[in-house]
Order: sequence, then structure tokens, then C-alpha cells
Amino acid sequence: MQIAKLIYDYPERNADLYYISRFWAPDPFVFFEHRGKKYLMLSDLEIDRAKKSASVDRVLSMAKYIKLAEKIKKQPEMTDVISELLKEHKAKRLVVPGRMSFDMVDKLRRLGYYITAGTFPFYLQRFCKTPEEKKTITKIQQVVFQAIHYAHGVLAKSRIKRDRLFYRGRPLTSEWLRQMINVFLLERGCSASDTIVACGPHSIDPHDTGSGPLKPHQSIIVDVFPRSLKTYYYADATRTFCRGRAPDALKKLYATVREGQELAISKIRSGIHGKWIHESVLKFFEGRGYKTEQKGGRRQGFFHSTGHSIGLELHEEPGRIGPRDFKLMSGNVMSVEPGLYYHGIGGVRIEDLVYVTKNGCEVLGSYPKRLEIL
Amino acid sequence: MQIAKLIYDYPERNADLYYISRFWAPDPFVFFEHRGKKYLMLSDLEIDRAKKSASVDRVLSMAKYIKLAEKIKKQPEMTDVISELLKEHKAKRLVVPGRMSFDMVDKLRRLGYYITAGTFPFYLQRFCKTPEEKKTITKIQQVVFQAIHYAHGVLAKSRIKRDRLFYRGRPLTSEWLRQMINVFLLERGCSASDTIVACGPHSIDPHDTGSGPLKPHQSIIVDVFPRSLKTYYYADATRTFCRGRAPDALKKLYATVREGQELAISKIRSGIHGKWIHESVLKFFEGRGYKTEQKGGRRQGFFHSTGHSIGLELHEEPGRIGPRDFKLMSGNVMSVEPGLYYHGIGGVRIEDLVYVTKNGCEVLGSYPKRLEIL
Repeated sequence: MQIAKLIYDYPERNADLYYISRFWAPDPFVFFEHRGKKYLMLSDLEIDRAKKSASVDRVLSMAKYIKLAEKIKKQPEMTDVISELLKEHKAKRLVVPGRMSFDMVDKLRRLGYYITAGTFPFYLQRFCKTPEEKKTITKIQQVVFQAIHYAHGVLAKSRIKRDRLFYRGRPLTSEWLRQMINVFLLERGCSASDTIVACGPHSIDPHDTGSGPLKPHQSIIVDVFPRSLKTYYYADATRTFCRGRAPDALKKLYATVREGQELAISKIRSGIHGKWIHESVLKFFEGRGYKTEQKGGRRQGFFHSTGHSIGLELHEEPGRIGPRDFKLMSGNVMSVEPGLYYHGIGGVRIEDLVYVTKNGCEVLGSYPKRLEIL
Repeated sequence: MQIAKLIYDYPERNADLYYISRFWAPDPFVFFEHRGKKYLMLSDLEIDRAKKSASVDRVLSMAKYIKLAEKIKKQPEMTDVISELLKEHKAKRLVVPGRMSFDMVDKLRRLGYYITAGTFPFYLQRFCKTPEEKKTITKIQQVVFQAIHYAHGVLAKSRIKRDRLFYRGRPLTSEWLRQMINVFLLERGCSASDTIVACGPHSIDPHDTGSGPLKPHQSIIVDVFPRSLKTYYYADATRTFCRGRAPDALKKLYATVREGQELAISKIRSGIHGKWIHESVLKFFEGRGYKTEQKGGRRQGFFHSTGHSIGLELHEEPGRIGPRDFKLMSGNVMSVEPGLYYHGIGGVRIEDLVYVTKNGCEVLGSYPKRLEIL
């Protein structure tokens, strides 16, 4: 017996659903794959649009299956409606995404279906981006670099007064610059809200999105990772700036991270183990005197991964270039973003995206790596 | 034996998780409730922030439980880590959200845990908003009305040239006005991307977000439903405009929808059945000669719900004011948004949010209801 594939989810929450159907809607819908044919089952509100744009063989009206289910139950649940679709196609054995609602799976099992969890992601071809997908991500990355350049411009135009930066006569804050960046992105069809603009003590915590006044002579991490509202792919880049002269310790930290990033990029190619790249960077940092350790209850040094896969999700499979092992493959799009974070000096992170090839990798888009804005 | 509550999800995807923990992070985390105490289990990157802001009794370091799990398995999965937490608290029976990943539930069951699905939503107190929540939603709704007023201003300033609208010398399109509205919202701390700006033939499909040139003498539906980036609550309002003189048929349609909305609002109070309100509006429309029917393969008339609950989700429980029954309760925040859609006339929808009280309801925020912009 043929095993059918079934997804019921929001495309916003399940990248596989959008990947395979190329259809986006604000509400959850059903994707079904059986005997080599792909189907969507949708509410009548979505059908016309799906017929025009979805990459499936047939678009089915959910209303029809609701009516069938109502013959059995007065107020049928979604699982009853799905069951009518499955009955029609004589599908008894299903593979579904492991993250499907267990309540729905329990109910379908009680209706007699045999259900197992598929791979994660559900469509493993997502690991290796097509040339078309590479182009899509590169376009978004170019917008990201425009946004970083715009942030650079705001910092350059800001004035230093004692220990603060002023822009257009007002104190420049993380919140304000983040908002300017997010608006800039939105005007170019990209959506972001958690953009990191973290200065000084905030910059040493990689998960701190930043708050309060931006200050001169300190590191300012600008990490931009929007989603395209048109193609739904992500891009991701980071630059670290310092408005005004940087202290020598920060300059040295910056040069080291920059070299570490170049080292990582130079090692990336199909077949290489991510763990080995990550350890090379760690070792390189240690060789330069930058230890990764616990100090005063806080971690310092380089304590996150060197990179992550990116595509229809910001962090997606096949994996991270980090302490856990995973082998790079041609077509992977990975971030390469080593960083060093020290209390008293500040945080520095530099991030680009690369497309893994047989003999190396291709950096997507480009933007200078310079710390000081004088 | 005490039954424990467990959630493992992204706060962005699971409103209950944010509701109960008041903690937001970009990655999934564990919430655990047992013997009257609430816990979060988090990666070290999030712990400091959670200790400051989360509304739980204790914040636990995931690293500790990973170490315990590693004594049993070389590369423990998330379920193994959660199991260590459960063992420590001697919790064997769990209630989890029905939409929890079935793969994780299967694995936890295999480890000997007894798991059932909780209510939906997991925290039923979300049905009835506190005065604090009402204030929060009202504030966002005020921003929504500012955005609608801003869109009104753009339309008012646009010039009519033959069958097109021009703004700042360029043809005004749905896409452009949508973007202006979204940027306006983002500058005020609210995020939206699917804002509806649908004109003429687009306006008769309630799910069409609109595209192409905006035209004079036709209905333009502006439906704005952002999420606050600070409080994570939603608001939602719709106004229908017409730049230039409206045809008589559209004016009559508008007046009818407006009366229908007022009728619905006047009937809302605690204890009333939503179905009855919805049917009253349908009957009122039919009495005015506006039938809801299938015509030429398309539905026309009033073929969506009168309203939906809103809060930490755009469409949330307890339910919709629509054909299925549900009884309104004090503290529900509901949209009231009847509409009429006719090929050849256009679409009209007017939407406000109300807070249900014992004897009636309170409209949150206010903005004029006027069709023509002359």
C-alpha cells in the first residue's frame, strides 16, 4: 500500500508546507501527497488564488469534505474532514511532520489511520538550495546590506557629545536605530522586528537585542535578519561598528574576529565537518589569547555556534556549524558568524552568508568590514 | 497524584506560553507547572533576562538537565532533557496543549509518561480580558485608527486623473498604500504585513489583500490588524472609503453595512448567543434587499462571520460571532465586522472591537464611519 504524505498547518509556522505547495494563506490548510500527485484542500475563500499560484496538481474545496463529514457527525472536527479526503483516496498509512498536533494524530489514529513522523524537515531537498533559491536569498541579503549601510550612515551622521551619540538633535538609542532599520527594510518588502542594535555592555550578550543610548568609542553590533514578504525566504548579516575612535583592545578584538571569520569561510566546502570548522575558529581565537571560559558567573569568549543553515526558516536544518557534528553539502546556505565577547572590552560579531560548493563556497552579497566610523 | 502542565513551544506560535510566562524569546522553551509552582527551563543565553521579566516562580538552567540526560544517552533529544526535569519533580501525568508535536508526545509516552491534551486555549482565562488587557488592546486599536486616518489622508491628497488615483505624482496602488500603512504602524511599535487595501473588484473578495492601481468612485477596503511588538497583543479595525463621488448603489450598500454593524453592536452583551446576533445581521441585510447567495459560481452578500475573538492571537477562542453557536461572556474582546460584497457594486466592511460587559459592550477607540473622500 502506498504511504500518503499529509500536512495540516499554517504556512507561516511550517516552512515545508510553503516549500512544497508554494501557497501562502493566513490560516492553516491541508496538503496531501498520494500516488505521485499533490493536492491542497482549502476553504472556498482561498481556492481561486490557489488555483492560480499553488504548485500542486489539484486544489480541492474543503466545503465538499465538510458536507461528507456532516453526514456522520453533526459538528465534524478537522480530523473528520481530513478523514473524508483520505477515504476518497483510499489512504490508510500516513507520514506527517513530527510536529503535527498530537491531539489530531491521536484522533486520526482512533479513526483507524496508521501514522508515523516523517523526516525533519519533511522535505529533505530543502537542505540544498537550487540556483533559483540562491538568487532569491542573495537578493534579500543585498537589502540587508543596504540596511546595514543605512545604519552606518546614521551613525556617521550622529554627533558625539560627551558619552552619548546625538542624531537630528536627539539622543540616538538602540530602540530608535532598530526602528529606523526595520522601517527601511519594510519599505523594501522585508519584515524584521528583532533586529539587534546592541552597544557596549549589551553587545557582550549575543541574545540582547539592545536598549538605551548608543555611545561613542564602544562596539555596536548590528545584526539584521529579515524575511522577505514576497518570497518568504530569510537573509542574515551582522556588522560591528564603533562611532569615534575605538580603544585598542576593541580594535584588536575586531581584527581577530575578522580573521576568524575569514578562516572559517576559507575552510568551508562540501564534505567538510562543521564541528571541525568550529573548533578551528575556537583554536585560532585561543591562539590569539582569547579564551572561552566562565568568569564571574558569565561566559566570555566565543560561546555560540559559528553558523546555521538558513532558507525558509531563519535557523533551519541540516544544522549548525558548532560543537555538534554535521557534514556540509553542496547547496547548503550557511551563516558564518564567529564572535568574541568580553566584559570590559565589548562584543564583536561579523556575519555573512555562504553558498557551499564542491570546492569551496560563495559569499552572498558583500559589504565592507570596518569597525571605526570616524 | 498531581497532574503537571507542560508547554514546549515558541512564544510566537503559542499564545498560551507567553500568556502564562510573560516571557518572549526567539527560540522554543519549556514551561512547567506543578504543585502550584511555575517554572521555565531555558538555555543559558536567556536566563538573566527571564529572571528579570518572566512571571514564574523559578527559572531553571536547561544546561543542568542536558548534563543529566547525557549520563543516559550520548546525544540526548529534547524529550530526554524534559524527562530529567519531570523526574526531578516526580511528575508522571501531564496535560499539554493539544497541538504539541506528536513526535515528542510519542517519545515521552515511550519514556513512561501519561499525557493528555488540555483545553484549547490551554489557559481558559484568556477568554475574558482583564481591565489591564483591555487597556493594552485599546492602545493598539488607537494606533490602528491613526493608521486608518493616515490612509484616509493619503487618499484625500491623491488626485483623480481619469480612472486612476495619483499620489505625489505617481499612480497610487494597493501595494504602495499598504506599505505606507505598515511603515506607519512599525514607526509606532506595531507590526503588520497583510494589511488589506482592496479596491473595486478586489474588495468583493474578503481574503484578497488587494493589488494594482487604486481607482476613484469605487470602494476601497482598508483593514488593519497589527501586533504590538511590545505587548504582543493584536488590534483590528476596518473602514471602507471611496475617493471621489460614490455611485448611489455603493452609498446604499455602505449605509446598510453601517446600520448592520450598529445593530450587531447594540445586541452584544454577556449571555447572548453569537449565532443569534449573526442571524439578526443577515436578516437585516435581507430585509434591505441584500441577499446572500451563490451567483455565477461566486458567493455574494454577507458570507463571513460577524466577528471573532482577539487578544494574543488575531483570531482566538472562545469563538466567532457566526453560524456556529457560542455564548458571549463579560470580558470577551470581539471584532464586529459585517460586510456586503456584490459584483458590480463592490465590497463594504466596517469593523470595530468591543469589550463585552454585563449589560452591553464598550467600543474600543473610535473613528468616523464615512464612505466618500471628496
